[in-house]
Amino acid sequence: MRITLVGSGNVATHLAAAFKNAGHSIMQVYSRDMQNAALLAYHVKADAIDDLQNINPDTDLFVIAVKDDAIGPVAEQLAIYKKLMVHTSGAADLFTLLAFADNVGVFYPLQTFSKTKELDFRNTPLCIEGNGDEITKQLQELAQTISNKVYLIDSPKRKTLHLAAVFACNFPNYLYNIAQQLLAKQGIDFELISPLIQETAEKVQFNLPANVQTGPAIRNDETTMAEHIKLLQDEPHLQHLYELLSQGIIKMETPQRGDK
Amino acid sequence: MRITLVGSGNVATHLAAAFKNAGHSIMQVYSRDMQNAALLAYHVKADAIDDLQNINPDTDLFVIAVKDDAIGPVAEQLAIYKKLMVHTSGAADLFTLLAFADNVGVFYPLQTFSKTKELDFRNTPLCIEGNGDEITKQLQELAQTISNKVYLIDSPKRKTLHLAAVFACNFPNYLYNIAQQLLAKQGIDFELISPLIQETAEKVQFNLPANVQTGPAIRNDETTMAEHIKLLQDEPHLQHLYELLSQGIIKMETPQRGDK
Repeated sequence: MRITLVGSGNVATHLAAAFKNAGHSIMQVYSRDMQNAALLAYHVKADAIDDLQNINPDTDLFVIAVKDDAIGPVAEQLAIYKKLMVHTSGAADLFTLLAFADNVGVFYPLQTFSKTKELDFRNTPLCIEGNGDEITKQLQELAQTISNKVYLIDSPKRKTLHLAAVFACNFPNYLYNIAQQLLAKQGIDFELISPLIQETAEKVQFNLPANVQTGPAIRNDETTMAEHIKLLQDEPHLQHLYELLSQGIIKMETPQRGDK
Repeated sequence: MRITLVGSGNVATHLAAAFKNAGHSIMQVYSRDMQNAALLAYHVKADAIDDLQNINPDTDLFVIAVKDDAIGPVAEQLAIYKKLMVHTSGAADLFTLLAFADNVGVFYPLQTFSKTKELDFRNTPLCIEGNGDEITKQLQELAQTISNKVYLIDSPKRKTLHLAAVFACNFPNYLYNIAQQLLAKQGIDFELISPLIQETAEKVQFNLPANVQTGPAIRNDETTMAEHIKLLQDEPHLQHLYELLSQGIIKMETPQRGDK
C-alpha cells in the first residue's frame, strides 16, 4: 500500500517503520517542523514536507498521527483528495474524521512508544475501526501485515481502553518515578528495584492482578502502613496518595490472598 | 551451610529452593501449619516441624521468614541455641533480633514472590545487614551463592527501599487491577493491555521513569483528562485517584518530554 504519514512523533515513527518493514511504500512524511519530517522520511525512504499544500495525491492512505486537537483541522485539509484517512488516537472519536469525509477509520496502537527504545511491533495490539464493513476489512488486512494482535474496537470501547491504558501505563510509570525519587534522596540506586518492577509486570501477563496483589495493604498490616506514612512526613502529596491507594487495595476483592 | 527455615510462605519457599539449588542443606522447615511445613520440606528434602520445641540445634543458620510481628517472639525462642539468625523483612529493624541475640542479621530479598510463578533468583536483589563486620561478611558470602545482586543495606535504608517497593510494585499492581475492572465492565479482555504493561516496566530498566513518562497528564491535555473524569462518573474513588495522580504528573520534573 502507498501510505502518507501526517505527523513525526513517536506513534508516527514506530508506525512508519513497521509499515516500511512490511513492504509498504511510505510516500511522504509531513511535520510542521521540517527537520523532524526529514529525519523520519530519511529512515523510511520517503519525501519530507512541512506544508500540507505540498501533499502528493498519489497515495492510498493518510495516517494522521498528530495531537488530538489537530486531527480535525488536518482531516479538513486532506478531505479534498478523497483518499482513505485514519487517525491513531485512543481518545478521539471516529466522528472527528467523519465530519469531513466518508472513507475514514481508526488505527490505534495500544502501546507506549519512545524514541529511545525499539519494540517488536508484531506484539503491539492494534485497535481498528472503519466507517463501514468494507473500510474495516481493508484496515484489518493492513493491520495484520504489521501486527499479530489486531482487534476490532468501536469508538466508545476505544475510549475505555485509552482510560485503562492511563491506569496501566502512565500512572504506574509515575509511581516508579516516586520510588526512584525516594531512593535517590537516600543515595540508593534505582536499579535495586528495577527487577521488582519487571517481575510485577510479568506476573500479570498470565494472572489477573487481583490474584497476585502483595504488600502491606492487602495484608492489612497497619504497623507497616503507619511507618510508611511517617517516613513520608515531609511529603503530604505522597502521604495522601499512599493512603488513597492503600484504602483501595484494602477494599479489593481478591480471590486468593497470602502472597508476600 | 546447614540452614533451618522458620516459615513456609512465599519468601521462605523461594529462599529455601534457592539455597537448596546452590548446594546448601535445608535441615528443617517450621510452620504452625504442619501441612505447609511438610509441603515445603518435601521439596527441599528437609524435616518438617510445627513446634519450635522440636528444633534440631544441629544447624548453622536460622532464617526467620514470618510475618513482621512474629519475628520477635520467634527470635526469643530460638536465642537459646546461640546460632546465627536472620530475618527476611524489609520493614523490620535489625534491632528486632538484636533484642534477643548478638549473632544476627537481615537477608531481605527485594522481589515480589508468588506461589504460581517461578523466578530466577540469581537476578533477585538481596539486601544484607549484619551485626558487625564478621557476620556481614558471612551473610554476604552466603547471599552470593544464590544471587548475583547482593547489596549491603542498613536498617534505615532498607525501610526506604521497602517503602519504594510499595510504590513500584504493590501500587502499580493495584492500578493494573483498576484497568482490568474498567475493561471487564465493557467486555474487553485484559490481555489487550498486557503488552502495554510489560513495555512500561521494560522502559524503566534502562531509563529513569521521568524520562519516559507519557500520557495526557504530562502533555497537560486537559480535554482528554476531562473526558476520562467523565467516564469515571460512577466511581468517585477512581476519579479522586485519577486527579491526584494526574496532578502529580503535571508537576513532575521531566528532562525530556514529547513521548506519546
